[in-house]
Amino acid sequence: MRDEIQDELNRVSGSLVIMAKAVREGMRQASTALLAADHTLAQQVTVRDAEIDVLYRVIEDRVYDLVARRHPIDGDLRTVMTALQVAADLDRMGELAVHVARAALRRHPQTAVAPELTSLFRAMATVADELGAKIVAALADHDPVLAGQLDGDDDAMDELHRGLFSVMLSRDWPLGVEAAVDGALLGRYYERYADHAVNVGHHVLSLTTGRTAEPA
Amino acid sequence: MRDEIQDELNRVSGSLVIMAKAVREGMRQASTALLAADHTLAQQVTVRDAEIDVLYRVIEDRVYDLVARRHPIDGDLRTVMTALQVAADLDRMGELAVHVARAALRRHPQTAVAPELTSLFRAMATVADELGAKIVAALADHDPVLAGQLDGDDDAMDELHRGLFSVMLSRDWPLGVEAAVDGALLGRYYERYADHAVNVGHHVLSLTTGRTAEPA
Repeated sequence: MRDEIQDELNRVSGSLVIMAKAVREGMRQASTALLAADHTLAQQVTVRDAEIDVLYRVIEDRVYDLVARRHPIDGDLRTVMTALQVAADLDRMGELAVHVARAALRRHPQTAVAPELTSLFRAMATVADELGAKIVAALADHDPVLAGQLDGDDDAMDELHRGLFSVMLSRDWPLGVEAAVDGALLGRYYERYADHAVNVGHHVLSLTTGRTAEPA
Repeated sequence: MRDEIQDELNRVSGSLVIMAKAVREGMRQASTALLAADHTLAQQVTVRDAEIDVLYRVIEDRVYDLVARRHPIDGDLRTVMTALQVAADLDRMGELAVHVARAALRRHPQTAVAPELTSLFRAMATVADELGAKIVAALADHDPVLAGQLDGDDDAMDELHRGLFSVMLSRDWPLGVEAAVDGALLGRYYERYADHAVNVGHHVLSLTTGRTAEPA
Protein backbone atom coordinates (compact mmCIF):
# COMPACT_ATOMS: atom_id res chain seq x y z
CA MET A 1 0.00 0.00 0.00
CA ARG A 2 2.76 2.43 1.00
CA ASP A 3 4.64 1.69 -2.25
CA GLU A 4 1.52 2.26 -4.32
CA ILE A 5 0.94 5.60 -2.62
CA GLN A 6 4.57 6.49 -3.29
CA ASP A 7 4.22 5.55 -6.96
CA GLU A 8 1.17 7.74 -7.34
CA LEU A 9 2.82 10.60 -5.46
CA ASN A 10 5.73 10.33 -7.87
CA ARG A 11 3.37 10.57 -10.80
CA VAL A 12 1.71 13.68 -9.33
CA SER A 13 5.15 15.13 -8.68
CA GLY A 14 6.17 14.45 -12.30
CA SER A 15 3.07 16.28 -13.54
CA LEU A 16 3.93 19.27 -11.35
CA VAL A 17 7.37 19.42 -12.98
CA ILE A 18 5.80 19.37 -16.46
CA MET A 19 3.37 22.09 -15.37
CA ALA A 20 6.18 24.23 -13.93
CA LYS A 21 8.13 23.92 -17.20
CA ALA A 22 5.07 25.04 -19.18
CA VAL A 23 4.56 27.98 -16.81
CA ARG A 24 8.20 29.03 -17.14
CA GLU A 25 8.00 28.81 -20.94
CA GLY A 26 4.73 30.80 -20.92
CA MET A 27 6.31 33.66 -18.99
CA ARG A 28 9.43 33.60 -21.21
CA GLN A 29 7.22 33.95 -24.28
CA ALA A 30 5.10 36.64 -22.63
CA SER A 31 8.19 38.66 -21.67
CA THR A 32 9.69 38.38 -25.15
CA ALA A 33 6.35 39.30 -26.72
CA LEU A 34 6.09 42.29 -24.38
CA LEU A 35 9.58 43.66 -25.03
CA ALA A 36 9.55 42.96 -28.79
CA ALA A 37 5.85 43.74 -29.40
CA ASP A 38 5.55 40.27 -30.98
CA HIS A 39 1.88 39.62 -31.74
CA THR A 40 2.21 35.93 -32.68
CA LEU A 41 4.22 35.06 -29.61
CA ALA A 42 1.78 36.90 -27.36
CA GLN A 43 -1.08 34.84 -28.80
CA GLN A 44 0.86 31.60 -28.19
CA VAL A 45 0.91 32.39 -24.47
CA THR A 46 -2.86 31.96 -24.36
CA VAL A 47 -2.59 28.58 -26.09
CA ARG A 48 0.09 27.51 -23.63
CA ASP A 49 -2.12 28.61 -20.73
CA ALA A 50 -4.87 26.32 -21.98
CA GLU A 51 -2.36 23.43 -21.72
CA ILE A 52 -1.49 24.54 -18.20
CA ASP A 53 -5.19 24.50 -17.27
CA VAL A 54 -5.47 20.93 -18.53
CA LEU A 55 -2.44 19.87 -16.47
CA TYR A 56 -4.01 21.51 -13.41
CA ARG A 57 -7.21 19.48 -13.84
CA VAL A 58 -5.19 16.28 -14.38
CA ILE A 59 -3.27 16.85 -11.15
CA GLU A 60 -6.45 17.65 -9.23
CA ASP A 61 -8.12 14.50 -10.50
CA ARG A 62 -5.08 12.36 -9.65
CA VAL A 63 -4.95 13.78 -6.15
CA TYR A 64 -8.65 13.19 -5.55
CA ASP A 65 -8.34 9.69 -6.87
CA LEU A 66 -5.29 8.98 -4.74
CA VAL A 67 -6.95 10.27 -1.56
CA ALA A 68 -10.21 8.44 -2.27
CA ARG A 69 -8.63 5.09 -3.10
CA ARG A 70 -5.44 4.96 -1.03
CA HIS A 71 -6.35 6.96 2.10
CA PRO A 72 -2.90 8.47 2.64
CA ILE A 73 -2.18 9.71 6.17
CA ASP A 74 0.42 11.85 7.96
CA GLY A 75 3.32 12.84 5.71
CA ASP A 76 1.78 11.36 2.56
CA LEU A 77 -1.44 13.27 3.13
CA ARG A 78 0.50 16.51 3.69
CA THR A 79 2.43 15.84 0.46
CA VAL A 80 -0.69 15.26 -1.57
CA MET A 81 -2.45 18.33 -0.18
CA THR A 82 0.66 20.41 -0.77
CA ALA A 83 0.76 19.21 -4.38
CA LEU A 84 -2.68 20.75 -4.85
CA GLN A 85 -1.48 24.07 -3.47
CA VAL A 86 1.60 24.03 -5.71
CA ALA A 87 -0.64 23.31 -8.72
CA ALA A 88 -2.87 26.25 -7.76
CA ASP A 89 0.16 28.58 -7.53
CA LEU A 90 1.48 27.37 -10.90
CA ASP A 91 -1.95 27.86 -12.45
CA ARG A 92 -2.03 31.46 -11.23
CA MET A 93 1.51 32.07 -12.56
CA GLY A 94 0.30 30.88 -15.97
CA GLU A 95 -2.60 33.36 -15.79
CA LEU A 96 -0.21 36.19 -14.93
CA ALA A 97 1.84 35.36 -18.04
CA VAL A 98 -1.41 35.70 -20.01
CA HIS A 99 -1.97 39.14 -18.45
CA VAL A 100 1.51 40.20 -19.59
CA ALA A 101 0.81 38.87 -23.09
CA ARG A 102 -2.54 40.67 -23.21
CA ALA A 103 -0.87 43.95 -22.29
CA ALA A 104 1.47 43.38 -25.24
CA LEU A 105 -1.49 42.67 -27.54
CA ARG A 106 -3.41 45.73 -26.36
CA ARG A 107 -0.68 48.13 -27.47
CA HIS A 108 0.40 46.24 -30.61
CA PRO A 109 2.05 47.32 -32.96
CA GLN A 110 3.48 49.72 -30.38
CA THR A 111 5.31 48.24 -27.39
CA ALA A 112 3.45 48.38 -24.07
CA VAL A 113 6.70 49.18 -22.28
CA ALA A 114 7.91 52.78 -22.43
CA PRO A 115 11.57 53.10 -23.56
CA GLU A 116 12.42 54.56 -20.11
CA LEU A 117 11.25 51.30 -18.53
CA THR A 118 12.68 48.76 -20.97
CA SER A 119 15.81 47.94 -18.97
CA LEU A 120 13.77 47.53 -15.76
CA PHE A 121 11.29 45.20 -17.41
CA ARG A 122 14.10 43.26 -19.08
CA ALA A 123 15.57 42.74 -15.60
CA MET A 124 12.16 41.73 -14.18
CA ALA A 125 11.75 39.23 -17.02
CA THR A 126 15.18 37.79 -16.25
CA VAL A 127 14.37 37.39 -12.55
CA ALA A 128 11.00 35.84 -13.44
CA ASP A 129 12.77 33.34 -15.68
CA GLU A 130 15.30 32.50 -12.97
CA LEU A 131 12.45 31.94 -10.55
CA GLY A 132 10.81 29.70 -13.15
CA ALA A 133 14.01 27.70 -13.63
CA LYS A 134 14.46 27.29 -9.88
CA ILE A 135 10.97 26.04 -9.16
CA VAL A 136 11.27 23.52 -12.01
CA ALA A 137 14.53 22.26 -10.51
CA ALA A 138 13.28 22.40 -6.91
CA LEU A 139 10.17 20.38 -7.84
CA ALA A 140 12.16 17.89 -9.94
CA ASP A 141 14.89 17.26 -7.36
CA HIS A 142 12.96 18.15 -4.18
CA ASP A 143 15.89 20.46 -3.57
CA PRO A 144 15.42 22.56 -0.41
CA VAL A 145 18.49 24.69 -1.21
CA LEU A 146 17.03 25.89 -4.52
CA ALA A 147 13.65 26.36 -2.89
CA GLY A 148 15.25 28.52 -0.22
CA GLN A 149 16.99 30.71 -2.81
CA LEU A 150 13.64 31.89 -4.17
CA ASP A 151 13.27 34.40 -1.34
CA GLY A 152 16.44 36.15 -2.52
CA ASP A 153 15.14 36.35 -6.10
CA ASP A 154 11.86 37.70 -4.79
CA ASP A 155 13.76 40.46 -2.96
CA ALA A 156 15.45 41.31 -6.28
CA MET A 157 12.02 41.50 -7.94
CA ASP A 158 10.66 43.74 -5.17
CA GLU A 159 13.68 46.01 -5.58
CA LEU A 160 13.04 46.29 -9.34
CA HIS A 161 9.36 46.91 -8.62
CA ARG A 162 10.26 49.80 -6.31
CA GLY A 163 12.69 51.11 -8.94
CA LEU A 164 9.89 51.05 -11.50
CA PHE A 165 7.68 53.25 -9.34
CA SER A 166 10.47 55.68 -8.56
CA VAL A 167 11.08 56.17 -12.31
CA MET A 168 7.39 56.58 -13.12
CA LEU A 169 6.66 58.90 -10.21
CA SER A 170 9.73 61.10 -10.65
CA ARG A 171 9.12 64.71 -11.64
CA ASP A 172 10.88 64.29 -14.96
CA TRP A 173 8.80 61.31 -16.18
CA PRO A 174 8.45 62.39 -19.81
CA LEU A 175 5.54 60.16 -20.78
CA GLY A 176 1.91 60.39 -20.00
CA VAL A 177 -0.51 58.65 -17.73
CA GLU A 178 -1.16 55.72 -20.08
CA ALA A 179 2.47 54.57 -20.11
CA ALA A 180 2.60 54.83 -16.32
CA VAL A 181 -0.64 52.89 -15.85
CA ASP A 182 0.67 50.15 -18.18
CA GLY A 183 3.92 50.13 -16.22
CA ALA A 184 2.15 49.91 -12.86
CA LEU A 185 -0.03 46.99 -13.91
CA LEU A 186 2.77 45.10 -15.66
CA GLY A 187 4.98 45.61 -12.62
CA ARG A 188 2.24 44.18 -10.46
CA TYR A 189 1.96 41.07 -12.68
CA TYR A 190 5.69 40.33 -12.39
CA GLU A 191 5.67 40.98 -8.67
CA ARG A 192 2.74 38.60 -8.14
CA TYR A 193 4.40 35.98 -10.35
CA ALA A 194 7.43 36.13 -8.04
CA ASP A 195 5.19 35.87 -4.95
CA HIS A 196 3.61 32.69 -6.26
CA ALA A 197 7.04 31.25 -7.13
CA VAL A 198 8.06 31.90 -3.52
CA ASN A 199 4.92 30.09 -2.36
CA VAL A 200 5.93 27.10 -4.46
CA GLY A 201 9.40 27.24 -2.88
CA HIS A 202 7.92 27.28 0.62
CA HIS A 203 5.76 24.29 -0.23
CA VAL A 204 8.79 22.35 -1.52
CA LEU A 205 10.65 23.29 1.65
CA SER A 206 7.81 22.07 3.85
CA LEU A 207 7.77 18.78 1.95
CA THR A 208 11.50 18.22 2.19
CA THR A 209 11.44 19.18 5.87
CA GLY A 210 8.56 16.79 6.39
CA ARG A 211 10.56 14.06 4.69
CA THR A 212 13.58 14.68 6.86
CA ALA A 213 11.44 14.58 9.96
CA GLU A 214 9.71 11.41 8.87
CA PRO A 215 12.05 9.10 6.92
CA ALA A 216 10.25 6.58 4.72
CA MET B 1 -19.12 7.06 10.22
CA ARG B 2 -21.11 9.02 7.62
CA ASP B 3 -22.75 11.07 10.39
CA GLU B 4 -19.41 11.84 11.97
CA ILE B 5 -18.05 13.03 8.64
CA GLN B 6 -21.15 15.16 8.20
CA ASP B 7 -20.69 16.69 11.68
CA GLU B 8 -17.11 17.59 10.91
CA LEU B 9 -18.02 18.96 7.48
CA ASN B 10 -20.60 21.15 9.20
CA ARG B 11 -17.93 22.46 11.56
CA VAL B 12 -15.63 23.27 8.65
CA SER B 13 -18.52 24.92 6.88
CA GLY B 14 -19.27 27.01 10.00
CA SER B 15 -15.65 28.18 10.11
CA LEU B 16 -15.84 29.22 6.46
CA VAL B 17 -18.86 31.38 7.23
CA ILE B 18 -17.00 33.06 10.12
CA MET B 19 -14.01 33.59 7.82
CA ALA B 20 -16.19 35.07 5.07
CA LYS B 21 -17.76 37.49 7.57
CA ALA B 22 -14.32 38.62 8.71
CA VAL B 23 -13.23 39.09 5.08
CA ARG B 24 -16.32 41.15 4.29
CA GLU B 25 -15.78 43.32 7.37
CA GLY B 26 -12.09 43.75 6.46
CA MET B 27 -12.95 45.06 3.00
CA ARG B 28 -15.67 47.36 4.43
CA GLN B 29 -13.13 48.87 6.81
CA ALA B 30 -10.50 49.13 4.06
CA SER B 31 -12.93 50.90 1.72
CA THR B 32 -14.05 53.34 4.41
CA ALA B 33 -10.42 53.98 5.38
CA LEU B 34 -9.56 54.58 1.73
CA LEU B 35 -12.38 57.01 0.99
CA ALA B 36 -12.15 58.87 4.33
CA ALA B 37 -8.32 58.68 4.70
CA ASP B 38 -8.91 57.13 8.14
CA HIS B 39 -5.55 56.03 9.53
CA THR B 40 -6.84 54.09 12.55
CA LEU B 41 -9.37 52.14 10.52
CA ALA B 42 -6.74 51.29 7.89
CA GLN B 43 -4.51 49.84 10.59
CA GLN B 44 -7.37 47.74 11.96
CA VAL B 45 -7.61 45.97 8.59
CA THR B 46 -4.16 44.47 9.20
CA VAL B 47 -5.24 43.21 12.62
CA ARG B 48 -8.36 41.70 11.12
CA ASP B 49 -6.29 40.00 8.43
CA ALA B 50 -4.21 38.32 11.13
CA GLU B 51 -7.47 36.85 12.49
CA ILE B 52 -8.37 35.69 8.98
CA ASP B 53 -4.97 33.97 8.69
CA VAL B 54 -5.63 32.11 11.94
CA LEU B 55 -9.04 30.98 10.69
CA TYR B 56 -7.41 29.74 7.47
CA ARG B 57 -4.93 27.61 9.44
CA VAL B 58 -7.72 26.25 11.65
CA ILE B 59 -9.75 25.22 8.60
CA GLU B 60 -6.71 23.62 6.95
CA ASP B 61 -5.92 21.65 10.10
CA ARG B 62 -9.52 20.51 10.46
CA VAL B 63 -9.63 19.35 6.86
CA TYR B 64 -6.35 17.44 7.16
CA ASP B 65 -7.55 15.85 10.36
CA LEU B 66 -10.90 14.90 8.83
CA VAL B 67 -9.29 13.34 5.75
CA ALA B 68 -6.66 11.50 7.77
CA ARG B 69 -9.05 10.08 10.37
CA ARG B 70 -12.34 9.63 8.51
CA HIS B 71 -11.24 8.83 4.94
CA PRO B 72 -14.12 10.60 3.21
CA ILE B 73 -14.81 9.51 -0.38
CA ASP B 74 -16.83 10.70 -3.37
CA GLY B 75 -19.04 13.69 -2.60
CA ASP B 76 -17.69 14.12 0.92
CA LEU B 77 -14.12 14.18 -0.34
CA ARG B 78 -15.03 16.74 -3.01
CA THR B 79 -16.73 18.87 -0.34
CA VAL B 80 -13.74 18.79 1.94
CA MET B 81 -11.30 19.61 -0.86
CA THR B 82 -13.56 22.40 -2.05
CA ALA B 83 -13.63 23.83 1.47
CA LEU B 84 -9.86 24.22 1.23
CA GLN B 85 -10.16 26.09 -2.04
CA VAL B 86 -12.84 28.38 -0.63
CA ALA B 87 -10.60 29.09 2.38
CA ALA B 88 -7.70 29.95 0.03
CA ASP B 89 -9.92 32.37 -1.93
CA LEU B 90 -11.15 34.01 1.27
CA ASP B 91 -7.58 34.31 2.53
CA ARG B 92 -6.57 36.09 -0.67
CA MET B 93 -9.59 38.43 -0.42
CA GLY B 94 -8.41 39.35 3.08
CA GLU B 95 -4.96 40.16 1.71
CA LEU B 96 -6.47 42.35 -1.01
CA ALA B 97 -8.31 44.34 1.69
CA VAL B 98 -4.91 44.84 3.34
CA HIS B 99 -3.53 46.16 0.03
CA VAL B 100 -6.38 48.68 -0.14
CA ALA B 101 -5.73 49.71 3.47
CA ARG B 102 -1.99 50.08 2.79
CA ALA B 103 -2.70 52.36 -0.17
CA ALA B 104 -4.76 54.52 2.21
CA LEU B 105 -1.92 54.55 4.76
CA ARG B 106 0.71 55.44 2.13
CA ARG B 107 -1.04 58.69 1.18
CA HIS B 108 -2.28 59.63 4.65
CA PRO B 109 -3.25 62.38 5.61
CA GLN B 110 -4.19 62.90 1.96
CA THR B 111 -6.69 60.51 0.40
CA ALA B 112 -5.27 57.94 -2.03
CA VAL B 113 -8.31 58.38 -4.28
CA ALA B 114 -8.36 61.40 -6.57
CA PRO B 115 -11.61 63.46 -6.30
CA GLU B 116 -12.36 62.58 -9.95
CA LEU B 117 -12.41 58.89 -8.98
CA THR B 118 -14.25 59.05 -5.67
CA SER B 119 -17.67 58.14 -7.01
CA LEU B 120 -16.23 55.21 -9.01
CA PHE B 121 -14.39 53.82 -6.01
CA ARG B 122 -17.44 54.34 -3.81
CA ALA B 123 -19.38 52.22 -6.32
CA MET B 124 -16.62 49.58 -6.41
CA ALA B 125 -16.65 49.45 -2.60
CA THR B 126 -20.42 48.97 -2.66
CA VAL B 127 -20.19 46.12 -5.17
CA ALA B 128 -17.36 44.54 -3.14
CA ASP B 129 -19.52 44.69 -0.04
CA GLU B 130 -22.48 43.16 -1.85
CA LEU B 131 -20.22 40.35 -3.07
CA GLY B 132 -19.04 39.88 0.52
CA ALA B 133 -22.60 39.73 1.81
CA LYS B 134 -23.59 37.21 -0.86
CA ILE B 135 -20.73 34.82 -0.25
CA VAL B 136 -21.45 34.89 3.49
CA ALA B 137 -25.08 34.03 2.78
CA ALA B 138 -24.25 31.47 0.07
CA LEU B 139 -21.81 29.68 2.38
CA ALA B 140 -24.19 29.82 5.34
CA ASP B 141 -27.25 28.56 3.47
CA HIS B 142 -25.50 26.62 0.67
CA ASP B 143 -27.66 28.76 -1.57
CA PRO B 144 -26.96 28.14 -5.27
CA VAL B 145 -29.15 31.09 -6.31
CA LEU B 146 -27.05 33.59 -4.36
CA ALA B 147 -23.87 31.90 -5.55
CA GLY B 148 -25.04 32.24 -9.15
CA GLN B 149 -25.75 35.97 -8.71
CA LEU B 150 -22.08 36.67 -8.05
CA ASP B 151 -21.28 36.59 -11.77
CA GLY B 152 -23.63 39.52 -12.32
CA ASP B 153 -21.96 41.52 -9.55
CA ASP B 154 -18.58 40.69 -11.05
CA ASP B 155 -19.77 42.09 -14.39
CA ALA B 156 -20.74 45.29 -12.56
CA MET B 157 -17.25 45.44 -11.04
CA ASP B 158 -15.61 44.91 -14.43
CA GLU B 159 -17.76 47.70 -15.87
CA LEU B 160 -16.64 50.07 -13.09
CA HIS B 161 -13.06 48.95 -13.64
CA ARG B 162 -13.29 49.84 -17.33
CA GLY B 163 -14.90 53.18 -16.40
CA LEU B 164 -11.97 53.89 -14.09
CA PHE B 165 -9.46 53.45 -16.89
CA SER B 166 -11.46 55.53 -19.33
CA VAL B 167 -11.48 58.42 -16.82
CA MET B 168 -7.77 58.12 -16.05
CA LEU B 169 -6.69 57.74 -19.67
CA SER B 170 -8.90 60.51 -21.07
CA ARG B 171 -7.13 63.55 -22.48
CA ASP B 172 -8.57 65.86 -19.85
CA TRP B 173 -7.36 63.88 -16.81
CA PRO B 174 -6.29 66.83 -14.67
CA LEU B 175 -4.11 64.98 -12.20
CA GLY B 176 -0.67 63.55 -12.55
CA VAL B 177 0.85 60.16 -12.95
CA GLU B 178 0.85 59.31 -9.23
CA ALA B 179 -2.93 59.61 -8.88
CA ALA B 180 -3.40 57.45 -11.98
CA VAL B 181 -0.97 54.79 -10.77
CA ASP B 182 -2.77 54.68 -7.39
CA GLY B 183 -6.06 54.41 -9.25
CA ALA B 184 -4.83 51.60 -11.50
CA LEU B 185 -3.52 49.50 -8.61
CA LEU B 186 -6.54 50.11 -6.39
CA GLY B 187 -8.83 49.23 -9.27
CA ARG B 188 -6.90 46.00 -9.74
CA TYR B 189 -7.33 45.09 -6.04
CA TYR B 190 -11.11 45.51 -6.20
CA GLU B 191 -11.30 43.62 -9.49
CA ARG B 192 -9.28 40.69 -8.06
CA TYR B 193 -11.41 40.74 -4.90
CA ALA B 194 -14.49 40.28 -7.09
CA ASP B 195 -12.80 37.47 -9.06
CA HIS B 196 -12.10 35.54 -5.88
CA ALA B 197 -15.67 36.10 -4.68
CA VAL B 198 -16.87 34.60 -7.97
CA ASN B 199 -14.57 31.62 -7.38
CA VAL B 200 -16.18 31.10 -3.99
CA GLY B 201 -19.59 31.24 -5.65
CA HIS B 202 -18.58 28.63 -8.22
CA HIS B 203 -17.32 26.37 -5.44
CA VAL B 204 -20.61 26.70 -3.56
CA LEU B 205 -22.47 25.93 -6.79
CA SER B 206 -20.38 22.81 -7.42
CA LEU B 207 -21.09 21.66 -3.86
CA THR B 208 -24.82 22.22 -4.08
CA THR B 209 -24.89 20.52 -7.47
CA GLY B 210 -22.94 17.63 -5.97
CA ARG B 211 -25.43 17.35 -3.17
CA THR B 212 -28.39 17.27 -5.51
CA ALA B 213 -26.74 14.53 -7.51
CA GLU B 214 -25.90 12.52 -4.44
CA PRO B 215 -28.57 12.87 -1.75
CA ALA B 216 -27.38 12.06 1.76
